[in-house]
Amino acid sequence: MKLCQYYHSADERSADLKRRVPVHARLGVLIAGKIVDVTDKARKHHDIHDPQFAGVLTAAVAGLPEWGAFRKEIASLDREGGLDPKNVFFGPCVLRPSQYMDFYAFEQHVMTMRKQRGLDFIVPEWYEIPAYYNSNATSFLGHGMTAHFPQGEERMDYECELACIIGRPIRNATVESAREAILGYTILNDLSARARQTKAMPINMGPAPGKDFASALGPYLVTKDEIANLDDVGMRAYVNGEQWTDGKYGTVKHRFEAMVAFASAARTLFPGDVLGSGTVGTGCGAELKKFLKPGDVVRMEFDGLGELENKVDHERMAK
Amino acid sequence: MKLCQYYHSADERSADLKRRVPVHARLGVLIAGKIVDVTDKARKHHDIHDPQFAGVLTAAVAGLPEWGAFRKEIASLDREGGLDPKNVFFGPCVLRPSQYMDFYAFEQHVMTMRKQRGLDFIVPEWYEIPAYYNSNATSFLGHGMTAHFPQGEERMDYECELACIIGRPIRNATVESAREAILGYTILNDLSARARQTKAMPINMGPAPGKDFASALGPYLVTKDEIANLDDVGMRAYVNGEQWTDGKYGTVKHRFEAMVAFASAARTLFPGDVLGSGTVGTGCGAELKKFLKPGDVVRMEFDGLGELENKVDHERMAK
Repeated sequence: MKLCQYYHSADERSADLKRRVPVHARLGVLIAGKIVDVTDKARKHHDIHDPQFAGVLTAAVAGLPEWGAFRKEIASLDREGGLDPKNVFFGPCVLRPSQYMDFYAFEQHVMTMRKQRGLDFIVPEWYEIPAYYNSNATSFLGHGMTAHFPQGEERMDYECELACIIGRPIRNATVESAREAILGYTILNDLSARARQTKAMPINMGPAPGKDFASALGPYLVTKDEIANLDDVGMRAYVNGEQWTDGKYGTVKHRFEAMVAFASAARTLFPGDVLGSGTVGTGCGAELKKFLKPGDVVRMEFDGLGELENKVDHERMAK
Repeated sequence: MKLCQYYHSADERSADLKRRVPVHARLGVLIAGKIVDVTDKARKHHDIHDPQFAGVLTAAVAGLPEWGAFRKEIASLDREGGLDPKNVFFGPCVLRPSQYMDFYAFEQHVMTMRKQRGLDFIVPEWYEIPAYYNSNATSFLGHGMTAHFPQGEERMDYECELACIIGRPIRNATVESAREAILGYTILNDLSARARQTKAMPINMGPAPGKDFASALGPYLVTKDEIANLDDVGMRAYVNGEQWTDGKYGTVKHRFEAMVAFASAARTLFPGDVLGSGTVGTGCGAELKKFLKPGDVVRMEFDGLGELENKVDHERMAK
């Protein structure tokens, strides 16, 4: 199943994403190339404005046992009346998850970044635990939206990541129970303001100040049954059509199951929560010592997951 | 105004805090030593289960202009029918904020912690920007609740912090607009699993894995008009009645207004969002090379803000 959250106009989307909890998004299912609106069907089964579900509807729908009847109902839908994906305005495929953790799990990326700082080794702790930082769960963008970097940022960058989405509440997960709690996958562009990040890193609180302005997520939450072998998922990124990134999930050192198990120690993860893999090798401009300029378009193409495209610009300040 | 969120039973509180968005909390105002229930009055003015407000009710009520009529109404209440604070079960004073950033703004704490790692200087970047990491906005505890550390954690610790609460949406704040957006203050115990944190720190993603299991917040959100001079607020912490911490907010290097301005660059802060000051000098066991053991009780007393008391233990694992 490929699920998305979308809008009929850019204005509606923009107004919605300024709220703490969006309320106007439609829930869509991709059927034979068309997006079929299943918002009202979902509403018949559950109060989709219950704050428990609001904003994480795609994950709640796809993952929680109590939505089983709804899933059966949409399994028999056809593309009749569906919309061309080119004609909708995508929100992030999960709206306002409660938590967004970003990991650092690809050895090639870690080594390349450390070499740039004159370090030719990786600390042993990196091999022992899947470390992460918490990023901003309120600033996700959808496919097709422009990302606004902090004003004055001179080294605008992207990071090419696979994300897993949690399908049911889980705490103190084992690798096995983590696997069951993972609902599916999507493309994540962890946009990075490198000048701001570089200023913050020596203070040892992590990279968040360079990341919190925006991440793009989508276009579809693809349930895991649709992906035969996650290791084979190729992760490619293009800047203005030129390929900068050519990676594969199978090169990851700490797998999503291990990330969920580590992050859920004495901590509950909720449906819709997003775990980013970290940047795949060659997966950002900083590795290549190239950066983005206002107006550049970053497009990511992942096997079986679709394409996520976003323009970058600087934040325009209110007068 | 001193606002709190509370329950009539420990079971109700426990069930509620396992949800993504709590729904059973009562909203209380402290009047002459009694907690007066104003939940139904609030409901008359607004749909308090609107997902926009749910879970951040104290902040929404106190901060947003559209709640002005409600504030006038409760200003004339008396303590009649109010409850003794000893007889209620406190939730965190803000339930499920959308964002929780923790800063690192007291020089004495930073220097002491660095000296323990053999470093007798602070990096220049620390003086230039108020760095932070994002912590877990879904794991706040109330006054009187037990904090459960990850199983096996050997160095259980507290951190004694002042927190400011955001009262209205703000983005790209100046120091001046940040001051207006701050609604009030409360006590924050940033509980820290030091063994887990220490393992993660060399990986350069920040301290979050040692922090995400729980933070305690409360008991009251005290609106800023009640605090004559924030610099004079003494911050004291006691472990099993023995004083470990004796600090003062006035020793802070980066003030809350600067934190809000820095964190809100190209990023929206929402009502209820929590910004922690970082640990005040002498404000944790690690500074003193002493740690907590299961059953220990940490009590924080801040001038004008009340007392926040929490027991610590290890997470009990489900069979």
